[in-house]
Amino acid sequence: MNSLFERLLSTSEVMEALSDRHFVRAMLHFEAALARAQASVGLIPQTASASIVGTCKVELFDVLKLVREAGSARSATQPLVKSLRETVGLFNPEAERYVHFACSDQDLADTAQVLITRDGLDLISADLSHILTRLQELADSHATTPMLARSPLQASTITTFGLKCVQWAAPLQRAQQRLGLAADKALSLQFGSLAGPQAELQGKGQQMLALMASELKLKAPSLPWRTQRDEWVALACELALLVASLASLAQNMLQLAQYEVAELTPPDNSCSVALAAAQRMPQCLSSLLLTLAQDHDGGLGHWQAALAEWPTLLMSTHGATRAMALALTGLQVNTDQMRSHLEARRAAAPSREPAALFAPELAQQAAELARQHLLDLHAITAS
Amino acid sequence: MNSLFERLLSTSEVMEALSDRHFVRAMLHFEAALARAQASVGLIPQTASASIVGTCKVELFDVLKLVREAGSARSATQPLVKSLRETVGLFNPEAERYVHFACSDQDLADTAQVLITRDGLDLISADLSHILTRLQELADSHATTPMLARSPLQASTITTFGLKCVQWAAPLQRAQQRLGLAADKALSLQFGSLAGPQAELQGKGQQMLALMASELKLKAPSLPWRTQRDEWVALACELALLVASLASLAQNMLQLAQYEVAELTPPDNSCSVALAAAQRMPQCLSSLLLTLAQDHDGGLGHWQAALAEWPTLLMSTHGATRAMALALTGLQVNTDQMRSHLEARRAAAPSREPAALFAPELAQQAAELARQHLLDLHAITAS
Amino acid sequence: MNSLFERLLSTSEVMEALSDRHFVRAMLHFEAALARAQASVGLIPQTASASIVGTCKVELFDVLKLVREAGSARSATQPLVKSLRETVGLFNPEAERYVHFACSDQDLADTAQVLITRDGLDLISADLSHILTRLQELADSHATTPMLARSPLQASTITTFGLKCVQWAAPLQRAQQRLGLAADKALSLQFGSLAGPQAELQGKGQQMLALMASELKLKAPSLPWRTQRDEWVALACELALLVASLASLAQNMLQLAQYEVAELTPPDNSCSVALAAAQRMPQCLSSLLLTLAQDHDGGLGHWQAALAEWPTLLMSTHGATRAMALALTGLQVNTDQMRSHLEARRAAAPSREPAALFAPELAQQAAELARQHLLDLHAITAS
Amino acid sequence: MNSLFERLLSTSEVMEALSDRHFVRAMLHFEAALARAQASVGLIPQTASASIVGTCKVELFDVLKLVREAGSARSATQPLVKSLRETVGLFNPEAERYVHFACSDQDLADTAQVLITRDGLDLISADLSHILTRLQELADSHATTPMLARSPLQASTITTFGLKCVQWAAPLQRAQQRLGLAADKALSLQFGSLAGPQAELQGKGQQMLALMASELKLKAPSLPWRTQRDEWVALACELALLVASLASLAQNMLQLAQYEVAELTPPDNSCSVALAAAQRMPQCLSSLLLTLAQDHDGGLGHWQAALAEWPTLLMSTHGATRAMALALTGLQVNTDQMRSHLEARRAAAPSREPAALFAPELAQQAAELARQHLLDLHAITAS
Repeated sequence: MNSLFERLLSTSEVMEALSDRHFVRAMLHFEAALARAQASVGLIPQTASASIVGTCKVELFDVLKLVREAGSARSATQPLVKSLRETVGLFNPEAERYVHFACSDQDLADTAQVLITRDGLDLISADLSHILTRLQELADSHATTPMLARSPLQASTITTFGLKCVQWAAPLQRAQQRLGLAADKALSLQFGSLAGPQAELQGKGQQMLALMASELKLKAPSLPWRTQRDEWVALACELALLVASLASLAQNMLQLAQYEVAELTPPDNSCSVALAAAQRMPQCLSSLLLTLAQDHDGGLGHWQAALAEWPTLLMSTHGATRAMALALTGLQVNTDQMRSHLEARRAAAPSREPAALFAPELAQQAAELARQHLLDLHAITAS
Repeated sequence: MNSLFERLLSTSEVMEALSDRHFVRAMLHFEAALARAQASVGLIPQTASASIVGTCKVELFDVLKLVREAGSARSATQPLVKSLRETVGLFNPEAERYVHFACSDQDLADTAQVLITRDGLDLISADLSHILTRLQELADSHATTPMLARSPLQASTITTFGLKCVQWAAPLQRAQQRLGLAADKALSLQFGSLAGPQAELQGKGQQMLALMASELKLKAPSLPWRTQRDEWVALACELALLVASLASLAQNMLQLAQYEVAELTPPDNSCSVALAAAQRMPQCLSSLLLTLAQDHDGGLGHWQAALAEWPTLLMSTHGATRAMALALTGLQVNTDQMRSHLEARRAAAPSREPAALFAPELAQQAAELARQHLLDLHAITAS
Repeated sequence: MNSLFERLLSTSEVMEALSDRHFVRAMLHFEAALARAQASVGLIPQTASASIVGTCKVELFDVLKLVREAGSARSATQPLVKSLRETVGLFNPEAERYVHFACSDQDLADTAQVLITRDGLDLISADLSHILTRLQELADSHATTPMLARSPLQASTITTFGLKCVQWAAPLQRAQQRLGLAADKALSLQFGSLAGPQAELQGKGQQMLALMASELKLKAPSLPWRTQRDEWVALACELALLVASLASLAQNMLQLAQYEVAELTPPDNSCSVALAAAQRMPQCLSSLLLTLAQDHDGGLGHWQAALAEWPTLLMSTHGATRAMALALTGLQVNTDQMRSHLEARRAAAPSREPAALFAPELAQQAAELARQHLLDLHAITAS
Repeated sequence: MNSLFERLLSTSEVMEALSDRHFVRAMLHFEAALARAQASVGLIPQTASASIVGTCKVELFDVLKLVREAGSARSATQPLVKSLRETVGLFNPEAERYVHFACSDQDLADTAQVLITRDGLDLISADLSHILTRLQELADSHATTPMLARSPLQASTITTFGLKCVQWAAPLQRAQQRLGLAADKALSLQFGSLAGPQAELQGKGQQMLALMASELKLKAPSLPWRTQRDEWVALACELALLVASLASLAQNMLQLAQYEVAELTPPDNSCSVALAAAQRMPQCLSSLLLTLAQDHDGGLGHWQAALAEWPTLLMSTHGATRAMALALTGLQVNTDQMRSHLEARRAAAPSREPAALFAPELAQQAAELARQHLLDLHAITAS
């Protein structure tokens, strides 16, 4: 596939985290946890489990071949399961039949997706923290730097760049908190279907799930979620909200950077990445929401569409987050320009305009407001 | 406008709650709270406040005329403010200049939207509770009613209709909880802009806001949110997730109702309403997400698009919620059909198929699972 | 419903054209054409047809009551058909059974939607022609008015305002042509279903359709389209493309109007309307595209969603078209500002920059280009 | 990137056609045509052109390295241009400065995208023709095979499977025609910007463009389209409409394949691919429509979003087209099931139902209709 343009809007780290290789590794991680848990509760022999666990190493598999076979098999998981069975069988023919025991393709694919998503979220979270720290620093150093406050077409009043920075931080901080909550709920193990209890598990299903969840460091859900993916899509909502707030910041910075204003100089291109991501995320989310309404206990095409759409969400979100982290790191604040525009505006004020509109006292109030919000921000960050 | 087709997908109650008349009433509610609070903190005279509060009665205004004028003025609020000023001025010319004091169109329109949204959410919430109660009743009475579990194209195994009902309830219960949290955050007063402190408020802004919020029973936000609407759009996300889960239920019910299956008979048309709503909500949400990235402290067209899109979200959500409440109330469960399909499938079982797949023991396990989930549901509902 | 905010983004003319009253009138228009055609081919008695045709007058019906009943019946058409039958029956009891003969709700609703859509398209088309004329006039008078050409963040080179105007016209002219073609295909009569020939029509279906189509001035399609609405959605695509190009024009004008540039002064608010419309149209279109994939010969919820979504498309498109027509009519071109910015940029040119970038000769070439494109535009308009 | 799930919904052919390697090859194709045309009109020396043309061979470049560098440079084209300059310079230092002369990144990236899009469209077109041929064959052999016509929840009347097939063909045939027209308009060369004439081209721009267009077998547009991409997005509309009609066919086939109906047996999974594609296309199109409204002559993030979104459109469309071609090729028609359901329905007819509804005469009329439409189809295919 033409990955060039995706790459421009993402980062190599998140593309690596979501790569085919990492997905295969996550599937093997799942299969190993499954075998270990099933042996613990007595569903499969300990020796079989040992063979399976020993074989679940990504180095033993030809990832490119698995990807090609997935295409022809129209299944992301079957070629791996087949290959795992064969490899296990080479060393321990008895164990072959216990590979992927009582397990479905969806269990494997969905849980592997959860595992690589967790890695993607970690990357996003780190850059988001960086952005918030940087905004606090800027708010701190520019708490009293006066500048024009602008509505889209006019200079409306006076503010300080520090106040602008704490205002920029506010929705991002809310996004950080909501994203954390949504991830806690969504990062859970998928096993089984709503069709009901599986005979093969001999009533030991719950116990097995608890062991697997603990090994994979995931939540064990009360019901299988493969056809009820609301928590999963709720996580996507939070990613979309985060990117929208990043784009709002990007848009603001670019407007302060345009030829006629030039009060800020962000590094080249970074803001565009966030804006591009923000144009794609809402549609990505739409697609996912549409996959929630499922036929019977299955859904035709929904699951496939949801799996294909998901990586774009994480890639775009990390692309946007990293881009804005870089934009803020390399940001040049042209305080002279800010002051000179402010003075020009004061000089051009129509006589009927209230003098207070651009008065230094207002800038002082803005500065106090900035400091006060900054204290709130620190308090939240510290807690 | 052609309201016929919107009406088919909504309810008269929510259309009334969101009507132009109720919006005008909400705007007057806001103006009265504003005047009262401003008098309390000493920004405007008590007599002026009394005149304004006394005039803020929807019966005194010609709503249809205001709506027409809004169209030509390209403003939803200015005709009302003008008319309010004139009417106040008739009785108390001194008070006229204190109408809408230090207040913007966005403060008025956004807060009025919050007030009618709260009414819309109450309607949605009531019907959602009804749905959950009804699903619990069905789960209770049909805990042991066996039926085929189906994947999209096959009869996969055996389950009970009671288990199906508790499974249907699970995502709706999660939606109910998340919606409550999101509403708590989003239903807050809008006042002021990010441009910074307003000179006219003489430093009494926070005190005034607290009084207004208390009178309107809304949260007072730490920053004005008119250009940072993330909490507001997060609420929209929850509505979209709720409708998606309702549509999933509708789709399931219709599949059990189709000519060849006929295990359920829902009342005519109700399920289609939920499906239609679910096709529109994701796009509605997309539009709102796109309005989050704002120019400067304003946004050109964003605010207008967001306000126009919002009512459709509430109308569709209540349409879908009410429709499914009716569908469940009038639902006929054809247990004979369920049993006869199950027996036909058992009789047609290929010899190589494990007998356990459709065994009565599995139905018993399903029934136990249903009862257990039902207890959980009751526990949550009670708490 | 809360129509206030829809009204701000639309026009009273198109809202009137798509009003419930006009929809009811269109349904009566259809029923009259049906009766007349069926009498002509001998399916119903001439006297019955005369009674029906005579009763198909919107003045005889209580539109508000029909709308209310549509809500409770969950059908936009049944209350009218019932009321029409009763009214016809009052005068000619024999004729009652020939009302809406061999006809479905979809035939009536879809064709009535086509009829009011045609009126909406006429309004759009008139304003679009006005825009194109105005752009030609501006191009003509400002062919040689030099100005800065800007990329988003920089002054890139020199152009003329006249050249800008012909460039603005180009995609709008393409939109006009494509829209005309799409409307020709989409404005066609809906009758019957894909289930196959209807026994009641006694083989006279094609003849009857030709007569009806001729009376309603619509195309007669070779197959019923109610479950194959691709031509209809293709028309929606053209509306979305038109609005996107109008929004591009609006965005450009606003950027030339912002505080720091001020080279254009468009009338208040008009450009925002086009931008708001452009944020909603793509999602509207998405919803419609999703309704194309239908269950069997019917679709659950698809048809209802499509009918509810459609008016927003026309309302937003006319809102945007009219807004830009007004923006161009009231546009003030500040040629002094254009010249002074150009000179300031020339003066500030870094020494290593090629002098040609802002040279008057380039402006002359731009002017020639403008005149040449203008001739092309005139030629197309004339043809 | 995680390409596994994209691969399941696409084909290896179209992924190859849109691969990074093919994109680089297309960029080199463009650079060679540029050099040759510029030498022909005398803008650069013939010897420089010969050196450049001789170096524009994909085998000479390390595609993986270019892709990695594109990521860090945040540009899809600059690493190639740089590498091309260096390689040309090795052999002919004089020629180095004539590489990519008077040309922008957008000219290169957009035209290369056009070239690989043409290859993608050829693949889609071939499979679409195959589908239409297969539907004609099925219509021919089953013109008189009677079956139940179903509305979503009921058996509505009688039809023939042959009539169903010609009905399925109709929207696909319209899609084929519209797609051809849209491609003719959209596949055109991008060169230059709306900023106006480029000094470097010394007035020879039009002549140069004509030569390039002829060599690349593309249309030469009257104006540069990089910031007015309406024809390009109009092409995307046609792809979305095609996929929606394919999904409608897939949905119909699956409903006839479900456990309780079993009148058709399509090959595994194929229909799901078309349904999954149809859920993603409308949102893809939305994203593209949103990129049409551009800032000044540029757009921040729009161009990047549009380029990243585009491949998914082609990949999904070919995935869906190929899947339905395979579904029709491997389709098993269970005429016995069709007949037995028809008889069961006749036997169960309520006494008040008109006997004509399921009468053999209606099936005969349906058969005649099928044959007649089939002749129309042949006529169109032949013309």
